Amino acid sequence: MTRVGILGYGNLGRGIESAIRQNKDMELVCVFTRRDPASVKIATEGVKVLNVSEAESMKDKIDVLIICGGSATDLPKQTPEYAKFFNVIDSFDTHANIPTHFANVDKAAKESGHVALISCGWDPGMFSLNRLYANCILPEGNDYTFWGKGVSQGHSDAIRRIDGVLDARQYTVPVPEALASVRNGENPELTTRQKHTRECYVVVKEGADKARIENEIKTMPNYFADYDTTVNFISQEELDRDHKGIPHGGFVIRSGKTGFNKENNHIIEYSLKLDSNPEFTGSVITAYARAAHRLAKEGQTGCKTVFDVAPAYLSPLSAEEMRAHLL
Amino acid sequence: MTRVGILGYGNLGRGIESAIRQNKDMELVCVFTRRDPASVKIATEGVKVLNVSEAESMKDKIDVLIICGGSATDLPKQTPEYAKFFNVIDSFDTHANIPTHFANVDKAAKESGHVALISCGWDPGMFSLNRLYANCILPEGNDYTFWGKGVSQGHSDAIRRIDGVLDARQYTVPVPEALASVRNGENPELTTRQKHTRECYVVVKEGADKARIENEIKTMPNYFADYDTTVNFISQEELDRDHKGIPHGGFVIRSGKTGFNKENNHIIEYSLKLDSNPEFTGSVITAYARAAHRLAKEGQTGCKTVFDVAPAYLSPLSAEEMRAHLL
Repeated sequence: MTRVGILGYGNLGRGIESAIRQNKDMELVCVFTRRDPASVKIATEGVKVLNVSEAESMKDKIDVLIICGGSATDLPKQTPEYAKFFNVIDSFDTHANIPTHFANVDKAAKESGHVALISCGWDPGMFSLNRLYANCILPEGNDYTFWGKGVSQGHSDAIRRIDGVLDARQYTVPVPEALASVRNGENPELTTRQKHTRECYVVVKEGADKARIENEIKTMPNYFADYDTTVNFISQEELDRDHKGIPHGGFVIRSGKTGFNKENNHIIEYSLKLDSNPEFTGSVITAYARAAHRLAKEGQTGCKTVFDVAPAYLSPLSAEEMRAHLL
Repeated sequence: MTRVGILGYGNLGRGIESAIRQNKDMELVCVFTRRDPASVKIATEGVKVLNVSEAESMKDKIDVLIICGGSATDLPKQTPEYAKFFNVIDSFDTHANIPTHFANVDKAAKESGHVALISCGWDPGMFSLNRLYANCILPEGNDYTFWGKGVSQGHSDAIRRIDGVLDARQYTVPVPEALASVRNGENPELTTRQKHTRECYVVVKEGADKARIENEIKTMPNYFADYDTTVNFISQEELDRDHKGIPHGGFVIRSGKTGFNKENNHIIEYSLKLDSNPEFTGSVITAYARAAHRLAKEGQTGCKTVFDVAPAYLSPLSAEEMRAHLL
């Protein structure tokens, strides 16, 4: 059994709680929250909710602590901090800061003799793995990553901050022509605008200036200015009815050449179509929690990423079963 | 540097030779053949061709020996035999016999202190990896593997053995409706006939009875009887002009559910579209040769599969470079 603790009970925490139920060799021990524990009702009966201040007292009862904080300010502090007491996993996804985060977590985990696995999920995570495998197989080629169709929380939040906006949901959508060109081995050079479009569904206050809001969205630097953006004004009822889900997905494609004269083309494509981004991310992290526990039992320490974990560590099956049924 | 030897110089051996040129840290040392070495002309200048009987004498000059024999009779003998002297890799693909082959190779490799990696390529190989990862992430779901569009050598050979047939090329083709249903999360139960069709291009002797040949193909047990098969009679010129390549590919799809009430569907899809089956297979094997060499340098011994190799071992990049650029 792998005894799991969850730190942070938002969408991702619930996704992990749900995933643990699908894995017979995993057990949820407790949920830590920064809120008043009495105010947090979790889905699993009989499992304690504790304040984060009590985490250290649970260190012998938890094999892996899954940290569900945000990458901007939570994880850079939390993951090194809790690696002092636990084997830990996070889903740190600020790509540019991964080297620094890795170094901080590695130091803490090595000093305390724990295993820490950072940047786990689907991107970074499964998409990273597929970039790595495909680059190793086809050293001469081009990488393409497309995201969507899916909800971007960051872009939805950015729209909600505009004066007059009550609620919003933003979808990132790959451009079909760009995907088709890549799959066709044409190795296009694609601008930001050519790769993705952005679809916005916006609820505004009564009497709000829709033209001004649409213009503010479409010209917002970094978020929307470099994209072809469509803005749809809808009612709160429509948003709640049609845009409640958190779907996502995407495509990692490598297009490469082989042969003595580079005469042969190959396309490797990995794609995800997800009804629930946090539940899928939670499912990936749960499988890697099993792996982290095993690595720790072997005596390994320090910070790891998905690149460092042999696939067999993720599976509840024995090596014989895997070879017989999956190879 | 990883110094590589190739045993067997057919399509796969040439694919590996070509792949080694795309990897600056790999070097082809020599090619072993069962034929008269003087009769074998390889593509790389300055590299020796030796008779297999001389293999043992090269054991200190080769880090990994890649064995390119057939799975039916060659590899069950060759891989354990050469694991006595070398770290070895093969592409053993008779799924039902993998447990036995693994046991034989593991014994030889452990006794001699070498690393052996079996069943490497794309299926078994990359497809197996994707089945494993997807099963670990989505424990509740269904697996689907489709092959093609691609040339099946076994089926092409079976047609060539029919009386009156001069040459033939057989393509395995996934049924588009079946693929669409799987991708749509419908979790269909598919018969053999519903998953793939078979397209045959056949050159016959002058005056041959085409109706009889077509009937013999379509009713051939195991090979064609369970499929919808189309037979096209063409000239040798047409076959040489339009069907010379060895393309292949396929799709590994896992369709699974998450959520407290299993309310969310997810589709994980991995697909390959390959101009040259042997060159792509050779490229996978070459990346794993790098990994086998590293595992051996770490002091590991015994038989491994792709499940046992952490992805980072495949890459010529440092851990820092991988984390910075691929994670």
